[in-house]
Amino acid sequence: MGEFELLARIRERLPADGRRIHLGSGDDAAVTVPGGATATSVDALVDGVHFRRELASLAQIGHKALATALSDLAAMGAEPGEAYAALGVPPDLDENGCIGLLDGLLELAAATGTSIAGGDVTRAEKLFLAITVVGHATGPESFVGRSGARPGDALVLSGEVGGAAAGLLLLDRPGLGEKVPAATAERLRARQLEPHPRLDAGRALAAAGATAMIDLSDGLGGDAVHLARSSGAGLRIDADAMPLADGVAEIAAAAGRDPLDLAVSGGEDYELLASIPPGRLAEAKRLVGDAEGIALTQIGEVVAGAGVEIRLPDGRLLEPEGFDQLA
Amino acid sequence: MGEFELLARIRERLPADGRRIHLGSGDDAAVTVPGGATATSVDALVDGVHFRRELASLAQIGHKALATALSDLAAMGAEPGEAYAALGVPPDLDENGCIGLLDGLLELAAATGTSIAGGDVTRAEKLFLAITVVGHATGPESFVGRSGARPGDALVLSGEVGGAAAGLLLLDRPGLGEKVPAATAERLRARQLEPHPRLDAGRALAAAGATAMIDLSDGLGGDAVHLARSSGAGLRIDADAMPLADGVAEIAAAAGRDPLDLAVSGGEDYELLASIPPGRLAEAKRLVGDAEGIALTQIGEVVAGAGVEIRLPDGRLLEPEGFDQLA
Repeated sequence: MGEFELLARIRERLPADGRRIHLGSGDDAAVTVPGGATATSVDALVDGVHFRRELASLAQIGHKALATALSDLAAMGAEPGEAYAALGVPPDLDENGCIGLLDGLLELAAATGTSIAGGDVTRAEKLFLAITVVGHATGPESFVGRSGARPGDALVLSGEVGGAAAGLLLLDRPGLGEKVPAATAERLRARQLEPHPRLDAGRALAAAGATAMIDLSDGLGGDAVHLARSSGAGLRIDADAMPLADGVAEIAAAAGRDPLDLAVSGGEDYELLASIPPGRLAEAKRLVGDAEGIALTQIGEVVAGAGVEIRLPDGRLLEPEGFDQLA
Repeated sequence: MGEFELLARIRERLPADGRRIHLGSGDDAAVTVPGGATATSVDALVDGVHFRRELASLAQIGHKALATALSDLAAMGAEPGEAYAALGVPPDLDENGCIGLLDGLLELAAATGTSIAGGDVTRAEKLFLAITVVGHATGPESFVGRSGARPGDALVLSGEVGGAAAGLLLLDRPGLGEKVPAATAERLRARQLEPHPRLDAGRALAAAGATAMIDLSDGLGGDAVHLARSSGAGLRIDADAMPLADGVAEIAAAAGRDPLDLAVSGGEDYELLASIPPGRLAEAKRLVGDAEGIALTQIGEVVAGAGVEIRLPDGRLLEPEGFDQLA
């Protein structure tokens, strides 16, 4: 496979440049005219670490790589703009395979209004993708960081958790699928393989006045610890209030796992955890429902102090640590 | 090694945020307030493809990864702004190794006024780095693309070529070093291991009125083909006018290679090839000399038609093809 031949085929598939792009893929650099401020994030995914080629289609891998990057923009309340994709291609991935990967990425790009403005393709031993995404806002103060949570704020969660972890259990042990309806199993697998970045919910939360926000990649427990540390505050979470995805309880039971463990430590749900003044909560619920079609649930509150406490149904307290692994 | 522990050590080493950075590394995304327009490029480097760990120090690998990315900004005439580094860490690279790599990257960042504003660290089988760089200008028309070369323009080259290829020969066959003074051999090896992005020369050329510009990563021949194709014009290059780096002729002779081959096909010199109206040539030479302390040499001209012709000293014509390999 020739590099330039592949790049030509890739460029053919790219849609017309987005409105901010002055000069797209094919020059030394892409030229854009940004909004007043930009939010930029990079995510690298490696075969065997973040995905397994035997469990996911190439299009799903492309989708997930862009989704995890865009999820960081969602957590800033940013409007998605451009994406740049660096691709490491192993010997057993041919040109059509690369195109398949790209198609998954392009489908999500189109669905979210993201333009693929550049990239790089190289040989590699194992498949990897490094995706840089750039989001926009009228000014830097429009973005929501992790550090603004204040005691008294409500702690809210978009959508449901535990689904991605239950989906991974289903992929590893297909027999578990018998415990839930086929459509439920399919939805759980999709949560793992094709996560949806909550871009609309993120902008709705920013507009409603969220004071701090983070996306759930490591898991609710670990990401709550990040938010608490950055804000210099404590978080109290009520386990009973945590919305579990449909089927998580059944799959966890069949696999001998605690459903709460999947929800708190499972990771990869890519929902948003945010703090917001209680007076803005009703408005935030309405805006998130309108924008993304999902629920926004209060699962706890911000308190003075430090650390994260999860109150279990039996009254015990769980104190999750940040995941401390290179992944 | 814990991911968060490593990230904390990395963050400790990052200098204070650059003037455009509103929120730096450590949140979901970096927040910047760009100039009027941005140029963005991504480059991925993989062990065994773009560098070999047995030939380069980790600091040199970090340096080269950022240098090759910044070289694309140089070719746009951009002011360097922010860089984002995705790092794939193999099992045999420990935390101190990662810091060594980062130190090489940070040294070049400081020297060029680039801020490391974010990144990602993951496990990988082989070391890889994917670097995204963002450069700035007052407006999109201030950047120099590849497509503006017009018949009658002078074709100019910054610095000298062939040095990086001769340096690679020296690294592979240390015995060749006896053919040149030690300081010359050292300079040639440095051209290969620690290339210098011509950022100042690129901005000088943009200011002087360059109509098209590209950096020499694939080699003068292949990159000239890219520029000619993008501009819809032909390029005539005079081999006699091509400035060879000191020692290239001797190393080529000792290795049984044609020095012209090292200059045209060797690649990785990261000099700039640009077109410019003849009336702006003297000013461009002066500005590049003042800004970067190197010569700007006319090596040919832009002609009507297509393709690249290199006229050899004996009158024969060489027509280089674009490199067609995945590298």
